[in-house]
This record gives sequence, structure tokens and C-alpha cells, in this order.
Amino acid sequence: MTSERTPGPQVGRSPPRREARAKLSGRAPYVHDLVLPGMLHGKLARSTRPHARIRRIDTAAARAIEGVHAVLTGDDIRQLIPQPYHGPAFHDQPILALDKVRYAGEPLALVLASDPHVAQTAARLIEAEYEELPAVYDEVEAMRSSAIVHDVLKPAGTFPDLKHLAGKRDTNVALDFHLRRGNAARAFEHAEHVFEHTFKTQQVLHLPLEPFVSVADPGERQLTLHTASQSPSFVRIEIARLLGWPENRVRVQVPFLGGGFGAKVYVKLEALVAAAALIVRRPVKVALTMEEQFYTLTKHAATLRIKSAVDAEGRISARECEVWWNGGAYADIGPRITQKSGFTAPGPYDIEHVSIDSYALYTNLPPAGALRGFGIPQLVWAYESHADMIARALSIDPLAFRRKNLLREGRAQATGTLMRDAALDTVLERLAQRMRWDEPFERGSGSVRRGRGIGIGFKASISPTTSVAIVSVSADGSCHLLCSTVDMGQGSDTAMAQIAAEVLGIAAEDITVVHPDTDVTPFDMATLGSRSTYHMGNAVKRAAEDARDRLFALAAELGLAPETTPIPEIFRRKYGMQAGNVVGQGSFVPSYIPTDHASGQSSDVTPFWMVGATGVEIEVDTETGQVKVTRLVNLADAGRTVNPAIVDTQLSGAAIMQLGFTLFEQIEFRSGQVANASLADYKIPGMHDLPPLIENEAVTAHEHGGPFGAKGVGESGTFAVSPAIANAIEDAVGVRVTALPITAEAVYRALRASRGEPLAQ
Amino acid sequence: MTSERTPGPQVGRSPPRREARAKLSGRAPYVHDLVLPGMLHGKLARSTRPHARIRRIDTAAARAIEGVHAVLTGDDIRQLIPQPYHGPAFHDQPILALDKVRYAGEPLALVLASDPHVAQTAARLIEAEYEELPAVYDEVEAMRSSAIVHDVLKPAGTFPDLKHLAGKRDTNVALDFHLRRGNAARAFEHAEHVFEHTFKTQQVLHLPLEPFVSVADPGERQLTLHTASQSPSFVRIEIARLLGWPENRVRVQVPFLGGGFGAKVYVKLEALVAAAALIVRRPVKVALTMEEQFYTLTKHAATLRIKSAVDAEGRISARECEVWWNGGAYADIGPRITQKSGFTAPGPYDIEHVSIDSYALYTNLPPAGALRGFGIPQLVWAYESHADMIARALSIDPLAFRRKNLLREGRAQATGTLMRDAALDTVLERLAQRMRWDEPFERGSGSVRRGRGIGIGFKASISPTTSVAIVSVSADGSCHLLCSTVDMGQGSDTAMAQIAAEVLGIAAEDITVVHPDTDVTPFDMATLGSRSTYHMGNAVKRAAEDARDRLFALAAELGLAPETTPIPEIFRRKYGMQAGNVVGQGSFVPSYIPTDHASGQSSDVTPFWMVGATGVEIEVDTETGQVKVTRLVNLADAGRTVNPAIVDTQLSGAAIMQLGFTLFEQIEFRSGQVANASLADYKIPGMHDLPPLIENEAVTAHEHGGPFGAKGVGESGTFAVSPAIANAIEDAVGVRVTALPITAEAVYRALRASRGEPLAQ
Repeated sequence: MTSERTPGPQVGRSPPRREARAKLSGRAPYVHDLVLPGMLHGKLARSTRPHARIRRIDTAAARAIEGVHAVLTGDDIRQLIPQPYHGPAFHDQPILALDKVRYAGEPLALVLASDPHVAQTAARLIEAEYEELPAVYDEVEAMRSSAIVHDVLKPAGTFPDLKHLAGKRDTNVALDFHLRRGNAARAFEHAEHVFEHTFKTQQVLHLPLEPFVSVADPGERQLTLHTASQSPSFVRIEIARLLGWPENRVRVQVPFLGGGFGAKVYVKLEALVAAAALIVRRPVKVALTMEEQFYTLTKHAATLRIKSAVDAEGRISARECEVWWNGGAYADIGPRITQKSGFTAPGPYDIEHVSIDSYALYTNLPPAGALRGFGIPQLVWAYESHADMIARALSIDPLAFRRKNLLREGRAQATGTLMRDAALDTVLERLAQRMRWDEPFERGSGSVRRGRGIGIGFKASISPTTSVAIVSVSADGSCHLLCSTVDMGQGSDTAMAQIAAEVLGIAAEDITVVHPDTDVTPFDMATLGSRSTYHMGNAVKRAAEDARDRLFALAAELGLAPETTPIPEIFRRKYGMQAGNVVGQGSFVPSYIPTDHASGQSSDVTPFWMVGATGVEIEVDTETGQVKVTRLVNLADAGRTVNPAIVDTQLSGAAIMQLGFTLFEQIEFRSGQVANASLADYKIPGMHDLPPLIENEAVTAHEHGGPFGAKGVGESGTFAVSPAIANAIEDAVGVRVTALPITAEAVYRALRASRGEPLAQ
Repeated sequence: MTSERTPGPQVGRSPPRREARAKLSGRAPYVHDLVLPGMLHGKLARSTRPHARIRRIDTAAARAIEGVHAVLTGDDIRQLIPQPYHGPAFHDQPILALDKVRYAGEPLALVLASDPHVAQTAARLIEAEYEELPAVYDEVEAMRSSAIVHDVLKPAGTFPDLKHLAGKRDTNVALDFHLRRGNAARAFEHAEHVFEHTFKTQQVLHLPLEPFVSVADPGERQLTLHTASQSPSFVRIEIARLLGWPENRVRVQVPFLGGGFGAKVYVKLEALVAAAALIVRRPVKVALTMEEQFYTLTKHAATLRIKSAVDAEGRISARECEVWWNGGAYADIGPRITQKSGFTAPGPYDIEHVSIDSYALYTNLPPAGALRGFGIPQLVWAYESHADMIARALSIDPLAFRRKNLLREGRAQATGTLMRDAALDTVLERLAQRMRWDEPFERGSGSVRRGRGIGIGFKASISPTTSVAIVSVSADGSCHLLCSTVDMGQGSDTAMAQIAAEVLGIAAEDITVVHPDTDVTPFDMATLGSRSTYHMGNAVKRAAEDARDRLFALAAELGLAPETTPIPEIFRRKYGMQAGNVVGQGSFVPSYIPTDHASGQSSDVTPFWMVGATGVEIEVDTETGQVKVTRLVNLADAGRTVNPAIVDTQLSGAAIMQLGFTLFEQIEFRSGQVANASLADYKIPGMHDLPPLIENEAVTAHEHGGPFGAKGVGESGTFAVSPAIANAIEDAVGVRVTALPITAEAVYRALRASRGEPLAQ
């Protein structure tokens, strides 16, 4: 019953995920399951126009449906919240459309009824009169289009580095980021070789299998939100800001999540249900359908122009990058991606002269947000395709080309930040070994040709961000960990328990991890960007250390040997019975503050670097263009792995997700209208799309600032999948695809074009 | 939106109770409202015999009812829990009767069904075959009866001072407590006057308007109990002990309580629902009816013999007390009452020679527990009736007699403990002033005679006990308080918020108080015995001081002025945005440890003293015996009052409750069977029973060890109501009643007897 002291190392072993049984048995709680007494269901009516002024919203027919409790429009929300605009970087997104709509599918009105089917029926009867406006959809066109999505820029006050944008007019550029290092222009003048290519990526979906869902319960002293959110602390602060309330009047509770992938960050449905619940004074639930995910958040499509100067030995001397990010109608976290990922656009290479221009654009499409990689997979797609194209042009082996140019430990990255604990070389070399790169490779025959390709990418962590944790030790030595990290399938509960247990010298199983509830679990910036293992891991470690130190001090005060006295004995001696708690706390924010966010010209832009590399072996059917990945090898630097089994599945999961984005996933737009808003028409990877061989490896590494040497790994598997496949295709059949997704049709067209054959339309 | 610094004093003002709106609007959550998916309702079959061996329990007819999911008996429980006995002092109470029944009404079997009516119907069909055993009901008879309730004593291991009782056989004395000071026997030999009287009190009910209710939810990693409990931390530890689990595998959540009064402490239904839920692997709810409260817990009936030696000047020189506590079939907290209240049996008087014998008895009646006063109202009933009887016999004014003998500041109480911060004299003098004791009193005429009476009592706090609190300050300066004190109507949420706010220099309204949830709110011994304001109040104060000190340190580290910088500014400067938490913790256990629990021979038996006094003016109808209290004056020493309005209502509430126990409440037993298990037959005070004038006063006082000088007051109003009324009756009509309740019939009989008139039966 009592916990053993020193049950052996806890970090580095792979106890099963603690939620596994609850999920398999169907007992795990999700917001979709939640029913509150008197609860109303809300269903949305959505804009049918991509860009238009709203003349009138006709809700009469909806109101006339029996069972409809209320119909709310943006004007009703504005009665409660005079400035009903939210967003993490810009306060640009209205809770319900106000005055105009900016994309087809934008929420226009909310119908509330006890029966969700009644609400849905009524929502379909809502019509609006519009005055159509010119629209813009392409990110590059948006730079100079006269169709202006937002009349004026409204940066959120919380980021001081965006303040200078306030009030800017007549532009779709939400944020432009520029970085110069050395003198790229001069370097290009004197270059032996210059290569320039342009790449495109498409809009795709996060598609958590649990669609967006939030419930608001208007209490007497507190508004409680039950929401499938990756950022409960942010939601609390943002809802409190909208309502003009102190933080403690808003409570945000998050049970399990059926996936997040960056979709469920910041405010999504929370402001809507909060406002509706406060207006009607009843609990309100809004649960989106799978279809509605297409109208809520996408991944940034991007256009990436990359130009390199290369010397006679194949060394890159200069690189120029221009990136246009298609942010859709509302900025969400796009401007942060533009900056925080933008500065890695030249790739993990040691380049003296660098020029980067990165633009966050507003367009009349559904808003785009961070999706498992925070823009990095788009950048890697470009620079790792570009790398192979250069190597091929110069007849250098692609591996050798990368070895020659790799940014090694201690060298300065484009921002001037020195690389530290970024195992780029180890990852690349282990990838080469696993791929048996030096050995002969069987190339296929007939209509099935085989090829192989590699890619490597890196990512900075968004920073500086804060995590706080509380560890409470009970009188029998068992323990509770309170932290706001959201376990959305990535296994954070298990990993955090291992970290705390390691410090306390108890078994991880003796620690209960309390799920996010802003009334009790302390602040955490959010569960995103692979930041939790490092940031929350450090906070948890500190909290456990604080608890351990207090236990030791208590033991010493009682004349007991701190290290060897069983924990229950310490409590019994202190309190005369099984009573009491020892509470430890830990707070972590990286100690540096970047000197200049806007330019990124800091000596230290990230607390740690993530590294991911992928190698693939593929078959291309030259008659159909179909690509089959036969072997997928994922390498990453996760520092020291806390739970090797979880790291392994994180690498697989990320790579398979990116495989779908690479080969077939794409939201199709026709004049701003989503044309395939259904999983029947939008294909995600199924069992038969998976490579028969998937290998994952976290290299032996140590992150000096991480808890027990660990760092995040949730995104690393996504980085290099797309270029590795494109590189393998060229290796197999000699054609180069520069736009995602690489559908069979795209490959087939490229093959026909390469043979000079005309294509039937 | 942000909290002002220094919004003025928080302790000493009377903000409205924070739960008031939620309760009035019906939004306040109670366990009775809770419905979980798949939940089964349990209904109990109960013993029909007061004392019998169980030969067989026939559950076949119950099982045959359609819709019955399962029927469990003690044997089923024993499969899961080999030693299914619980109790705070003795592990004597089975979860369901095992081998024998010890009182009529004891739970025998549990029927589980989705529909509670089906379960109830089936439960009525359960029959048992018994082998009847001789029974004992009276506490004095139980001392020497051959009817033995428990074959062997099984003290709980947690109290070292009870260990010597383990294995004792052939006795109904669960605990005997003896205290000798000076030489009482010799003093009696030389006494001028000796007075000896015997008093009786009856069994009554706690009768919270929310009957007992618990729900158990068997999770995959944790068993969660939602329970109307005053002692969530105790429940967690006790359920974990029964199951052989670590504490963190049991979670206890307590929403609002519809009253407790000492009934909902320790384990009541929690072990039953826990075992049932684990056996059937579904959530199980057991909600008792009002009737079933009569079979669950009563207040100790007691017989009290008190004998005093008084000198010529009216000073008490010696006192001998014998108290027999009728504990019913299971000890519950009775042995603690026997000790902890037993040592105050001689009353708040300065007596050189004292002899106390106090006995906790097992009988074949429903178990008795602590009820708002932990035995003190029974003792005060005896010693304050006795005081007036002596004064009257010696023709001394009752107030003057008390003044002469009062135990004053710095003098030693029976245990040797020096009185400190017990405002006995102030309370007595303020009572005298309010009662205008020196002024002529209108005595009535004809058949309505008027009288007045006073009484004064005191109480030690159960000790040493532990409380832990956490205070978490958010980035905008609003705040959460995590503590396991149960707000059961006494206003603790409001008072604790005021204490924390006072320390932090913010408004109490900016603090959210988190209700008990053992996963997040730290250990607290229990909400009982008026201990919370002092113990948890100190823990909360320390936690808030810790948080404040950390905030100040953070400010100083940032070069800000700690005392004047707004809290949000400190966070903004530290984290660059509205982010983070500062967490403070406080733990409190009185620093002394009594040297010898068993004898009470310690120099310091309590961390603080409670003092309560009551004065009444009454009318007695000499033709019917009916007593009407026309004025009720309650005085107390609550130290410095945290929330004067709450203290006021606590005094009224306690006094009115005791008024019911004094004038009419009584559980009637016939051969061990409850004869009036219904609120139609068991009368509690209604609006028309309330005195038209009720005055309450907390005297100006300061408790040196209390938070801001405060201490508990939840019970003080009960202490002296009964003897004040009995004393007033003698003052009005010259008859003395020595047994509770003082029904009209009892007074009428006494009046007839005093006039030598025979009574019709």
C-alpha cells in the first residue's frame, strides 16, 4: 500500500500509457459525452459567400421552428461583449460574423435548442442578404490585391513586438518578417552556381477524430468551460479579457482529447458557447461535425521561393528565401509561424550569407493555424527538395551534399544563435546507416521503378513560454501532479509522472496526474509545438524537487535520515497519524529573453532545437503515377527519451500524418468554396496506405536544459517526409514534383511531360 | 478586471455568503443530483432484530424481481475486502452485517438496480433467519450486562493511545477515561455542603435536510467517490485502507452539503458504494431516505452523575463526575468524545479537587456520533443544571454563584492546562448585562408564569489535528484557494476567502474557493468540532503569506517595489505577458503534542477554548406544562470574528437546534426498535417554536493562536441552551426537570408531582 523508496529508474523506461485502459474500455471522459441539466445545443448557420458585407440576417424562419430556444447573431453577442474579437496574435476574429463575412463557411448565427436536430434544421433556414466584395485566395496575389480582407490591423496587446502594426490599413500582410545575415546579394554576384526553385504546399486539415466541441456552464460566481482545448490557460485569460472579468471567474476544464495537432489551441468555440450561455443563462454546447472542421481551421498553404549560391565544391555560400503564408481570413497564430519558423527557412545548413523574407497573408479562405510542426514541414519541403535538386545538378550524392553543408554543433544559425544540443550530424549519420546508403539499391524494373530519398529538418521552440506545476505528496507516499498540459494522445500524463517519480524516488504508477482545470492546475502556456516535455517537464521536475526537499527537511527536523526513511514514516512522525500533505511547486520559463522579436536578431532564439530526418524507399508505377512507400525510416533527436515506447509512436504518428499530406490530402477550393468537405472526398491515410516497414529511432542525445536531458518530439517525425518522398520519386523515375500533394495524377502528368507526351485534360 | 491592491480590511467585514445565489437559484450542486452513465441505485434491506446471529439471508425473491442487477450481502463484500470493518476509533463496523446484527435497522443487504424504485421493492423482499441474542439498550446497564455487543475490541491502529484496548473481551466498555486532580474523596469528607444529582439526555438526530448520500464511480485507475461528507481526507484514507490501495487510487469529491452537524464524518455510505461499485464494475449510488437517517447515526444519550462539595461561601471545592455515553452498536467517534469532552465534565469552574470517570458504552441501538458540540451539550446540561440547583439550595443568586466559581484566565483547568484566551468572565458579564439580570423581572400571573435562566459552557478543541491549504495567485491578481474544508452551510468558503484576501491585500471576492476534491485540495482532518476557522484558517493564512512572500520576492528580483506594485504588473514583468501563477502553501498542526492522551494529564490539552453562554426568558403554562421561550440570548467567545454576520447566524442556528433537543426531539425506542422514524412523529423546531426575540453576541476577544485572533464558533451556541431553559422553568414554577427533552408532558408531570397530585397514566 505504501510506496517503496527507490523502486529503480523511472525516466527511460516505458510503462504503458496510463489512459490506455480507460480509452479501450470506453470510460475515458470526452467533452462530446458531457450532458448538463438544462443544456442547450447550438448549431451554426454559416456564410455562403467568401467576402461580403452583411446587409441583413433573416432568422425569422429559424425562430419559428418549434423547440428553438433562441437564435443569436453577431449583434446579440455585441450587446454582451462590446469588442467581440479574439485571436492569439491579432484581435481580428469575431465570435459570430459582424458587418461582413470573410470566408465561405464563416459562422453567421447560432441556433439554440434542447434537441440538436431541431437546432440543425432551424440553422439551415437562416439566410442573409449580402453585398459581395472582391475576394482574394492566393497568398502571393494577396500581397498586392486590391481585395482587402481586413480594413485595419488589430494586433493583440499581449505581444509587444506586434504593437507597431496597430492601425495599419489597406494591406493583407498581417506580418512581414525579414532577416539578413552577411551580404547575400553580393554573394550571389560572385557565385559559381545559382539555383532557384519555387515550391507550393496545399491547405490540409488537422482532422482530430474528435471534432471541435465546447460546453459553457454559466454559474453564479463562475463561468465554467468544458472544452476540447490544447490551451486551457490561454482560453481562461482570453475569455476573461473578452468579458472584462478577472481570471478566477472563468474556469476551464479539459478532459481527454481525441487529438489536437495544433487545431484546438487558442479560442475556437469557447467564446461562442460562453457568450451564448451568458445570454440565455443556460448551459450551451456546440459540437461541430466532421464537415464543419473544414470551415474552422486549416494548415497554411505556402509558396516558397528559395535561391542558393553554391561554390565549386558544393558548399552553399548564400541563400535567399521568400515565403508567403496563406493565413486565410483570420490570423490565428500565423504571424508567429511567419516569424518563429521563418527564421529557419534556409534549413539546417551552415550558410554565411542569408536573406529571409516571410509574409503572413490574409485571404478569403478559412483561417489557417499551426499544424504539427508550426510551419516547419512547409519549409523543409522546400529546402530539402531544393537540396536534392542542387546535388543532382552538381552530380553530388545527396547525402554527401548535406554532410558538406550541415550546420554543426557550436556554429551560428541564420539568427546568430549558436547551435547547441542539436544532433543534426548524428541524426543524419544514423539515417545513412539505417538506409544502408552506401550499399547498392535495387531499382525495380518494367513499370515499377524503385527509388529512395532522404530529408532532414530542424525547428526552434516557440519561446519564451511559461509552465507551472504542483506536486502534492500524500501521507502514504503516493502523489498527485497538477499541471495544465493536455494529454491529447501524445502520452504526456505518463511522461510527466515518470519525471516526477524519478525525482521523488517512487514508482510512476504511484502518481496521479490531474487533468487541466484552471481552478486547480496552474498556468501553462499551451500544449503545442513539442514544448511540454521541455517546459512542463522542467516545471514538474522542479515541483518534485521542491516536494522532495521539503520532505527531506521535515525528516531532518524530526531527526530521521532523509534519504532512507520511508515517506509514510516521515508523515506519521510529524502528524501522529496518516495525515497531511507535502506540496512542492515548480515554475519554468527559459531564462533568456530574445533581444528583438521583430527581427529575430537575437543571440539565443530558442531554448532547444528539434531535429527530424526521414528516409524512404518507394515504388513508382510508371503507368499510373502511383507512389507506394515501402519503407519509412524516421530519425530524431529527442534528447534523452523519457518513455522510449511513446517517442517511437510519436515518430510513427507524425510521419504517417505527413505521409497523408504528402500523397493525397488537400482541401479543394473553388472560388473560395470548399469543394470536398467530407471524409468521403478528402482522403486520409488508411491501413493500406501505410508503409509495410516503418522504423523509428531517437538517437542517443542529451539536451542540457531539458529535464533529465529530454526534449520534445511530437512534431519531428513530420519534418522531412514530403521532400524525402519527392526526392525518392526523382531518384526512381527522374521527375521532380514541386507542389504538394504528390498525387498519382501529379506524378503521371510529370512523367508524361518528361517524355514530351501531351496530356488529355 | 485586475484586483486593486489594498482594497481595505477583509477580516471583520461581512460580505454575503458566496454560495447564497447558487443555493437560492437552485444551481448549487449536491450529490443527490448526480447522475452518472450506467449508474445503479442501491437500496438497503435492514435487520429487524436488535441483536442476533444471522443464520441465513434469503435474497432469492429480491433477485427474481425484473430489473434487479445484483443483491449483495456482507459475504460478497468480504470477497473483495477480507476485513470489511471500519470506524475512526475502532474498526468495529462492518460494511454490511457479518455473522450477526447489533441493532434493529442495521444494513443487511444491498439491492442494485437502474431504477431505485425497483431496488426498493426488491429490498423489502429480503428476509433473514436469526438466532436472537440478549440485548442491552441502557448505557448504565451496559456496564455490567451479560449481553455483550462485541466479542472483542478492535481499536483502529491510527490512535496509539487506544492500542492497549486491542483484544479486550466480554465488555461493552469501548473506552473508560479517568481523571483525578487533587483528592476529591478527602475534600468531600470535609465539605460544608455536598450536592449530588443525576441527569439524563436522550438520543436525537443530526437530521441534515440532505440525508446521507454517496456515489462511487469505479474508474480504470482510480475509484472516485462523490459524497456528502464532512471528512473527505479521512474517507480517502479509510477507503484506501479497506481496499489495500495507495491513497492516490481513491478520489473523494464533495460538492455542497445540505447540513452535516457531525453526522457526515468518517465513513458512512462510502465503503458500501465503493465495494458495490468495484464488485459490479458500474457507478453505484446510495441515497438514504429521511427515515433511514434514524438507523444511521444518533447523538449519544448519556447518564451524568455529578456531585459537588461546596464551602460556606458557596465555593466549589471538589467535584466528582461520572458519565456514561450510550454509543449504540458501533463506536464511531464515541471513545474520543468520552476522552476529549470528558475532561471538561466539571464545567468551567475553578475546582481544586476533581474526579472524572467517563465511559463509552456499546449498546444494541443505532450508533451514536458527535453532534454539534462533541458531547459538550450533554455535559453542560448536567453541570449547569447542577449549578442552579446548588445556588438555589444555598440561596445564592445563580449568576453570583457562577461568578464566584468561574475558571478565570491563567488558572488551571481539571487537566492542569492553564486557561488562556477563554473569555469566560466577559461572556458571563455580557450575558448578565444583556439579560438585565440586576433589574426586576416580570413574573407573569395566573396560569402563565415567567422565569429566566442562564448557563455557560466551554469546550476544548479536538487535537492535535492537521490542515493544509494551497493559495494560487493568477497573473491578473485574482486567486484560488484550495482547501478540503467542507462548506456545509457554516460559511467557511466565505470566511477562508476573507482570511486569504486579508493577507494578500486583495478583495475576498477575487478569490475562488475550490471545493474538496482529494486529488487537488490538500489534507484536512475534517470539518468538525469548530476546528476549521482555527486550524484551516491558520493553514490558509500561512499559504497566503507564502504566496505573498513569493510575490514580493519576485517583485524585488525584478527591481519593483514589492508592496506597491500591482500584482498583474509583477507577472507581466516576469513572464512578458499575462502568464504564470504564484503558488503558496500552508500547513498547520498545533505545535504541542499532549503528553498522555489516555489520562489527559497534559499541561496543554487544547489549542484553544470555545466559550458559549445562553440566557432565556420563558413562559410556562401551568395548566398544560407547555414552555415557550420568549427571549433567547446567545453569547460566545469566537475570538476576533472573521465575518460577524456569519458568526451571528452560527450562534442562532446552534441555539435553535439545541432548543429542539431541549424541548421535544427524541428518538423513541421500544425494545430496541425505533418507534418514531418519521418527521411526522419526530418533531423538530418550526417557525412557531422560535423565540420571538433572539440576540447573539460574540464578545470582543482575541485568540492568540488563531488567524487574526479568530477561533471556531459553530458549536458554542448549543452549549447552555438546555440548562438555561431548565433553570428558567424552576425559576418560573419551582419544578426541576433533570431529563431531556423537557416536553410539556414532563413539565406537567413535574408540576403535578410538586403539588402532590396523582397522575393518570
